Formats: sequence, structure tokens, C-alpha cells
Amino acid sequence: MSELVVYGAIASQPVRSVLFFLKHSGIEYTYKELNTLKGETQTEEFTKINPYQAVPAIVHDGFNLWESAAIVAYLADAYNVDNQWYPKDPKIRGRINAYLHWHHQNIRTPLVSYLVAKYWFKAKGTPELTEETERPHREALQTWYENVEWLLNDTGFVARTEKATIADVFAYNEITLGLLIPMDLDAHPKIRTWFDTLGNDPVLQELLSGALDVIKHLT
Amino acid sequence: MSELVVYGAIASQPVRSVLFFLKHSGIEYTYKELNTLKGETQTEEFTKINPYQAVPAIVHDGFNLWESAAIVAYLADAYNVDNQWYPKDPKIRGRINAYLHWHHQNIRTPLVSYLVAKYWFKAKGTPELTEETERPHREALQTWYENVEWLLNDTGFVARTEKATIADVFAYNEITLGLLIPMDLDAHPKIRTWFDTLGNDPVLQELLSGALDVIKHLT
Repeated sequence: MSELVVYGAIASQPVRSVLFFLKHSGIEYTYKELNTLKGETQTEEFTKINPYQAVPAIVHDGFNLWESAAIVAYLADAYNVDNQWYPKDPKIRGRINAYLHWHHQNIRTPLVSYLVAKYWFKAKGTPELTEETERPHREALQTWYENVEWLLNDTGFVARTEKATIADVFAYNEITLGLLIPMDLDAHPKIRTWFDTLGNDPVLQELLSGALDVIKHLT
Repeated sequence: MSELVVYGAIASQPVRSVLFFLKHSGIEYTYKELNTLKGETQTEEFTKINPYQAVPAIVHDGFNLWESAAIVAYLADAYNVDNQWYPKDPKIRGRINAYLHWHHQNIRTPLVSYLVAKYWFKAKGTPELTEETERPHREALQTWYENVEWLLNDTGFVARTEKATIADVFAYNEITLGLLIPMDLDAHPKIRTWFDTLGNDPVLQELLSGALDVIKHLT
């Protein structure tokens, strides 16, 4: 009997993307929520599982792996998954992988950098944002909107696939946190429509609600 | 008969990683060198192949794909490749993919940012580096050395695999350009040994020699 343990923090966007894939693929797993603020990713035990001391990470029958997108690809192979979210078709996988490699610096980083600068400046030991120091973040956000609108132009999905895939879920989860910047999706109807349609998925809703519960208790 | 066209620029590190994989996998292809400085990635024709207007990009029997790591994974699937560089074993692939997702921001970006700031400041419209503005780059390079030494600690290869894989090739190719910073590999014997051993591969040597020819004519 194959045993899968998933280490995560529900407030983490990449963790929710991995959990979404597991739930939609009917893969059984044990979930261990780690409190990153209490240093639970820094322990000697967890460092053996993920030397980068970050979530998500998995242990599958003794094999440990990290990096959310690599975990999804691994689970799809190891569990022989072939669904809408990460199909076996090499062409569709190719498009999804191309998006996921691009995602880090172009979708995730601009939103996370802005949020960190705006809300976690004390923890980072940096000064509070002024109009001047916020300007590059605003400009990066503007580029971000343009990039996503342009991405969606082709098929309505970020990896230029005919259906929503795990690539859309990775993008969606970054935006759910990015909204705290705040972001104005109403000014970008193409993004708004894609975001709202994808957000109807009950698994996405349940995971987001878990994240919001945690974030509510932080602020 | 399957037809594969690869669009590249030999001076590009990710292009050389894709070409390395093709050559070591015995995949037949037609190679088209684009002159990025002459805007050959900006043409209407090439934009249809890669809307991001960057190399590498491929067209395989009418299917177009971009992003070097996604291209390698696609070719492995499409051509049923199972070699040392990107084996089918999901566990080894998982480790390689985890590295390749981490590579962008932690291996490639620090070296490329430093080089751009030092040599292409005019093209970027930014001032020449001073001791003060170079300091963050030097610090990032120090972190870079520490990261790579730490990566190699486990098995001697960057993706913690038992043999060299395409992950090592992606890292190697970034360093070949990074050496212009300059970098001091002799002060980091673990990196030096890994780099020199990998560099014995004749395909890597041939590709690097092509790149150095192009770079020599630029400087």
C-alpha cells in the first residue's frame, strides 16, 4: 500500500495548488499542516524532508520531494493520473510546463514582492512603503495585468490550453493573496471573468476558505 | 516522418542546454540560428512560434513550444527518451524538475543580473556600476557560491541525483557565461571539480566553443 504524506501550510498558494491536484485526482494522502511562523519548517526532522525548509513537500513511500510544480508532475506520473488538470498528452503538458516555469518570476514574484513590501516590511527590517518606493511595485503590477490579459487572449486559459489546467490553478491561487495589495480585477474584465469562472470550483473554494481563516487570525 | 525545427541563438545558455539534450538523445532536428541583436526573434513569423519572442523555441510537426525546461520534458515524452540526462524514472525526474523550477531565480538570475549590470548598462539605460552599486551583486554572488556548494554536498550533482543530469547542464551553461563577471571557481573546489568533470563532455565543449565564437565577435 502506497503511502503519501503532504507537508503544507494552507495559507501558502503553492501548497493549495498541490492539494487541489491531489483532491481532483482522487489520490489518498495524509496532510500535515506546519506552522511556518512557529519555525515548524526549520526543524531537523523537516529539513531532512525538504532541505530548503519550505512547503509544500511530500514523502511518498520514503521518497522526499519539494517544489510545487515538480510535485504535481511527479504525482501525475507516480499515480498514473490523466485528467483535465495535468493530462498525459505531451503537447498539453508541454504548454502547462512552459507556463509553470514562467510563473515564478512573472506571476508569483511581482505579487509576493508587493505584498511583502507593503505588509511585512517590519519582519523584513525594511522601511514602510512611501509613494516613491511603492511606484516600482505599482508599475510591476500594471505589467502583470497586461501579461495576464495577453496570456488569456489565446484560449481564455493561461497555458493556452482548451480547458482550465493546473497552470490556471497556480495563477488563481497567487491572485487570491494578491487581492490584499489590493488589486482591481474589475478594471480588467478578461481576468475578472477567468478568475470568477475558475473560482466556482468547490475544491478551490474550500481550500481558499481554509487559507482565509488562517490569514484572518494573523491580521 | 516527424519534423523538428529548433530556433536558437548559440550564445544563449538555455538554448545550449536544449541542444545538448537533443544531441545526447540522438533526436534529429533542423537548427535555425536567430540573431537576437538584429531583432530576428521580433518578427511576425517568429512571434507566431513563440509569442514571448525568445529562444529557444521549437516546432514539432506543427506544434510550437517555448521555455527550455518545458522543451526538454516535451522532447523526452514525444521521442520516448530514457537516458541519463532526463530518465523516465519519476523519482529522478522529480528531482530534476524540482531543480529546474528553482534554477530560474536562484542560479540563472543572480549571474545574468550581475552581467547585465556590469556589461550591458548602456543598452539598459542604467549607470555604470560603482563600488556601492556593485556590492549587492557581489553579495548575491557569494550566496550563489554557498547555494551551489550546498547543492553539490549530497551526491555531487545539483539535482541530488546519482549521475549528472540535464539539471547539471542547465547550471553548467549559466556558469560558462557567468565566468565573465568574473567568478572565482578556484576558491570553491567542490564547484570547480563538478564544473571541470562535467565540462569534459565533448558535446558541451562543442556547444560552448560555438558560443564563445559569437561572444568574441561582440566584445
